[in-house]
Amino acid sequence: MMAHNPHLPLVLDLLGVFAASCSGALTGLRKALDLVGILVLACVTGLGGGMIRDVLIGAIPPAGLADWRYVATALAATVVVLVIDHFALGARLHEKVSQRVGERVRLAMAARVSDAATLGLFTVAGTTKALDHGIAVMPSALLGVVTAVGGGVIRDILINEVPYVLRRELYAVPAFAGALVVALGHSIGHLTAAVAVIAAALTFTFRMLAVSRDWHAPRPGA
Amino acid sequence: MMAHNPHLPLVLDLLGVFAASCSGALTGLRKALDLVGILVLACVTGLGGGMIRDVLIGAIPPAGLADWRYVATALAATVVVLVIDHFALGARLHEKVSQRVGERVRLAMAARVSDAATLGLFTVAGTTKALDHGIAVMPSALLGVVTAVGGGVIRDILINEVPYVLRRELYAVPAFAGALVVALGHSIGHLTAAVAVIAAALTFTFRMLAVSRDWHAPRPGA
Amino acid sequence: MMAHNPHLPLVLDLLGVFAASCSGALTGLRKALDLVGILVLACVTGLGGGMIRDVLIGAIPPAGLADWRYVATALAATVVVLVIDHFALGARLHEKVSQRVGERVRLAMAARVSDAATLGLFTVAGTTKALDHGIAVMPSALLGVVTAVGGGVIRDILINEVPYVLRRELYAVPAFAGALVVALGHSIGHLTAAVAVIAAALTFTFRMLAVSRDWHAPRPGA
Repeated sequence: MMAHNPHLPLVLDLLGVFAASCSGALTGLRKALDLVGILVLACVTGLGGGMIRDVLIGAIPPAGLADWRYVATALAATVVVLVIDHFALGARLHEKVSQRVGERVRLAMAARVSDAATLGLFTVAGTTKALDHGIAVMPSALLGVVTAVGGGVIRDILINEVPYVLRRELYAVPAFAGALVVALGHSIGHLTAAVAVIAAALTFTFRMLAVSRDWHAPRPGA
Repeated sequence: MMAHNPHLPLVLDLLGVFAASCSGALTGLRKALDLVGILVLACVTGLGGGMIRDVLIGAIPPAGLADWRYVATALAATVVVLVIDHFALGARLHEKVSQRVGERVRLAMAARVSDAATLGLFTVAGTTKALDHGIAVMPSALLGVVTAVGGGVIRDILINEVPYVLRRELYAVPAFAGALVVALGHSIGHLTAAVAVIAAALTFTFRMLAVSRDWHAPRPGA
Repeated sequence: MMAHNPHLPLVLDLLGVFAASCSGALTGLRKALDLVGILVLACVTGLGGGMIRDVLIGAIPPAGLADWRYVATALAATVVVLVIDHFALGARLHEKVSQRVGERVRLAMAARVSDAATLGLFTVAGTTKALDHGIAVMPSALLGVVTAVGGGVIRDILINEVPYVLRRELYAVPAFAGALVVALGHSIGHLTAAVAVIAAALTFTFRMLAVSRDWHAPRPGA
């Protein structure tokens, strides 16, 4: 599968690591962690979901450990976030204290966007890697969702916040929708690069709309 | 082993998934999660302990992913909880606000009972599956305890509560007692269905008595 | 490797389990858990990091389950902590309530020292075991860090505190420094017992200095 571009799963996986590590580093900035704390949170968020997936499908040692490009990608994402934050900070040097609140909001927004990108990229990369390892279609879709949400759940547990996946706006549902597109493409023998990109874009867009328009599942009895 | 009924381990495992998913869904209701959050918490609670066990004994991919009946059981448990809650809610429609407190207490009680049933079922299913995979007797008993408490620990971490296993009333001890009965039965070559059912019932009853009579270990220096 | 003493990796691993279990039991005392809660926290802290490592390198079932000396070591550490605490408590029997605060501080200090010892021992044991399993040098160093911090992270998540690894004083950095010493020794073909002991001592001393002198990484924008 992925006949048109054999490198696509790896590219998607590394892009997912980049996006997830950005969301981890941004969360570390918002929580006022120091540089080491930010780096640790970025690595854990970037590599956690894929490692859980690799353990569950028996791809041992996990790519996040065995392939140096994964850690390098997480490091690069952290550096990018810190450099951008540094210059943005310079521009804000004369802001009043009351404007610092805006800073937190901006960091939280940037974390949400990179988290949505993570969701799209890892859903497709996770589902595809599971299918490549001979896992059946529906379990592969579930593994895609686990890959997509895993790193973020660890991130939120470490900083003592309730994970996105249990919060109000739809989160697991967009991931599952994208995973189903990949699974469907696989089933009809057409899991091309185009289908992979469409599935990732669908998940990202669906999630961003859920955040901006407050789409959420009903609450029983509410 | 389990010569009288080769399907018993699977049946106990699926019953454990059902009970654990009920406790997850009930906890989600108590925490006022939406439908997706409730479903996620039910699946994680129902499948988490068994997946940890399967990873530790090398049963890859874990049954919770590879066998569709596991996810289906978790889904079914969630639907059952939601339907019962819906009808109970109808009956409570004209209750005063002050009576809503009773609602939370009822949900917490139901979650405790289903959690105790989980403890009994997963202790036996986990110990048996470990023994079947050639793990030695004492490690198998420990794996039974890990299976039994694993899903609930993840559930409580996700909703930011201290896990039962660290709280006041005896929790790990009833599980370990049941696991020892299974281990003993295995050692003397008589791990029959009857022994399995007795061990599960012992764990369940022991745990329920611990809750209702406030049995707890002493606290050092207290 | 470790040609001078083939048992050294196991000895370091068991000493690490002892130190980590002590830190878990001491944390349980500080949190006023009962005896079962203290034992559970000691076992999880003592065995957690090594189990994560063993799962990631494919050493299944993990030594913490397969080798009875691991659980026995965790039990022994718990008993030692409880006995010492019991006698210290006797000596404090006539202390005033205001002096109880000092008790908590002492427990927290003792937990930090045993945690630093854990860091040194598990960094070396984890890196060495990964190298022995044919993992490349840098991933092995990372696995050493994961082994060293893993149990403590689980301990802190269970009691709802932010893990050391995200807090102020350097924690992951001393572990990584020790792991690099082991990796360097391995690369030049001289991973002797002396190098292992030096790496563990370096990590321990580095961490204790970071705690006592408040060494920490800078905070961006601070």
